Amino acid sequence: MKPASALFCDQVQPQVLGIHPYIPGKPVSELQRELGLESITKLASNENPLGASPNVITAIQNELVDIARYPDGSAYALKQQLAEFLNIADTQLAIGNGSNEVLELVSRVFAGPGDEIIYSQYAFAVYPISAQVVGATGVEVPAVNWGHDLNAMLAAITTKTKLIYIANPNNPTGTFFTKEQWQHFIDAVPSHIIVVLDEAYLEYAQSFLDKALYFNGVDYVEKYKNLLVSRTFSKAYGLASLRIGYMVGNEETVQYLNQMREPFNVNHYAQVAAQNALQDQAFVEQVVQLNQAGMRQLVNVFDELDIAYISSIGNFICIDLGEKVLEYNQKLLEEGVIVRPIANYGMPQYLRISIGTQVENQYFIDALKKVLQAN
Amino acid sequence: MKPASALFCDQVQPQVLGIHPYIPGKPVSELQRELGLESITKLASNENPLGASPNVITAIQNELVDIARYPDGSAYALKQQLAEFLNIADTQLAIGNGSNEVLELVSRVFAGPGDEIIYSQYAFAVYPISAQVVGATGVEVPAVNWGHDLNAMLAAITTKTKLIYIANPNNPTGTFFTKEQWQHFIDAVPSHIIVVLDEAYLEYAQSFLDKALYFNGVDYVEKYKNLLVSRTFSKAYGLASLRIGYMVGNEETVQYLNQMREPFNVNHYAQVAAQNALQDQAFVEQVVQLNQAGMRQLVNVFDELDIAYISSIGNFICIDLGEKVLEYNQKLLEEGVIVRPIANYGMPQYLRISIGTQVENQYFIDALKKVLQAN
Repeated sequence: MKPASALFCDQVQPQVLGIHPYIPGKPVSELQRELGLESITKLASNENPLGASPNVITAIQNELVDIARYPDGSAYALKQQLAEFLNIADTQLAIGNGSNEVLELVSRVFAGPGDEIIYSQYAFAVYPISAQVVGATGVEVPAVNWGHDLNAMLAAITTKTKLIYIANPNNPTGTFFTKEQWQHFIDAVPSHIIVVLDEAYLEYAQSFLDKALYFNGVDYVEKYKNLLVSRTFSKAYGLASLRIGYMVGNEETVQYLNQMREPFNVNHYAQVAAQNALQDQAFVEQVVQLNQAGMRQLVNVFDELDIAYISSIGNFICIDLGEKVLEYNQKLLEEGVIVRPIANYGMPQYLRISIGTQVENQYFIDALKKVLQAN
Repeated sequence: MKPASALFCDQVQPQVLGIHPYIPGKPVSELQRELGLESITKLASNENPLGASPNVITAIQNELVDIARYPDGSAYALKQQLAEFLNIADTQLAIGNGSNEVLELVSRVFAGPGDEIIYSQYAFAVYPISAQVVGATGVEVPAVNWGHDLNAMLAAITTKTKLIYIANPNNPTGTFFTKEQWQHFIDAVPSHIIVVLDEAYLEYAQSFLDKALYFNGVDYVEKYKNLLVSRTFSKAYGLASLRIGYMVGNEETVQYLNQMREPFNVNHYAQVAAQNALQDQAFVEQVVQLNQAGMRQLVNVFDELDIAYISSIGNFICIDLGEKVLEYNQKLLEEGVIVRPIANYGMPQYLRISIGTQVENQYFIDALKKVLQAN
């Protein structure tokens, strides 16, 4: 985007003017004030309705005495713990300021002007942005049934391809590909092309699907040296406020990411929180069970109301409300419900609803019924 | 750095192999275990010995209930407050994950392979790294009396120069340039070349120097559109653990930085902490007074012991311990004192000591005397 007053337009790197940054929504507090609402039910950002493990909160409180100290730039303790949890070496880990940072670091390390980066239609907004920030050409491959068309993605590979971003399950659609489809895909990608598998919603997906159908990307990094797998603590672990995610890969590719990142890229409380969150797998189990129940609660109502939806194995679901979707969305806002219109993903008739607690889901359902009936 | 096993060496962007990342020290807890020490006095990272304002701690505790929510990607509330504090528009602000991030974003926006980035000898390690990550040529200008030689930096400008990083005061040396020297410099820089003035230690510097001598970079951004001024909450405000800093400039250059940054680059607690820290200027006053007293305490001892030092207006001071500096440093470690050897800054005979509390400074002084006498 070229600004109105453009004195330095010729001074910036050419790709800067081609970046279409992610535009975050208004803060909830602002919206609440504007609409004069007493309370708001936010089901818009795939956040964890249970918060985080109580152990995390206690650990942060205990560390507030060290607020003026720099974080450990190498994230030593967290990496030890994660390496054990994932059964890999700590040298196979790069920790990021959210998985967003490690996803973008991959494009900064491996791609530049003239190179091609492949991703799917309806995939996470960070993939095209990661191509834009380095001036690479983003190649968007049409989806099939709202999900990745892995064969078409293979067919899109050219001599200029440096990098492929894929997500399993995909956000915002909640679709997935199977272990068999994955095996065929990763075997077919030339071994010099980097594949980034984004598993931000892994914990939810695993709770929905059988092990014969679903797979864990980390199990493949030993064999496929060109594979990088990203994970986040923002979803099932409930640490979105703190910004922490990580990338798993082979020692060499991960070292490049660590060379490129800033020395203190992950704040201290994110590190402390992630360590404690990882230790409380019972909390994660509670989270995914609540999510399964919430998904059933919503899907039952959509079936009952004859609302079309895209089957999802994430902590969110997209519904088709037709041409009046923005009008409905505005009325939902006035009822105090924030969900996510996803026209920016090329899905102008859809709303994405994040799964909340039983009470939050019911509040949304009641508001939706009211809004649709008033029509 | 080329890794041992290098399958992907030819796949990475050429500049990646030329990055010499900042190597952070071992975590204090590790060192403590290794050396079997009961307690450690850390005066190594220019951290705030008073921590942060109590208001900050309370505010963070009150916000822990929202740990699973994403931060405000636009940092709306903080920008409003900072804009008022600095008497600028909120569109003149880019908030970063530490000032490190905004410093590096400038090079990513304005420089690439073939471009030159000028900085001084003995200046902050992030400047050469910021040149390396974009593949630009770093031009290090020899210092004069350990400080920036602004005339030599002007003379180093070529048709390839895109960007100049300067720091006032400078870290690790603590040197400064005057208002008059600055005025001459900024008038002489061609208006298409971006000047980044790093004021990380501004609050300390202002407490040491008269207003006729010292200046505030933000006062110059209106007139000099090519000027960007970086600040941090990691030093006088005591928020190093959380990672938050910012860049002030004209609307256009700042917009480019905001286009290039990640959407949720600053965590929620950093934003909350910065807002509350800014409101407690009495705390900052207490911090700089303690720092002045601590600086006198150390300098008096160095004079008494006939130890050469570089006069500093920061919250740190460099002393010359000659050829045995690493031996002395090891013995200080064994006494439980961590200070910073700065051979990596081309100052192999020096240790940089951060100013602590009166008690911490005295602990260091006693250890130093013991170590020197044992020699």
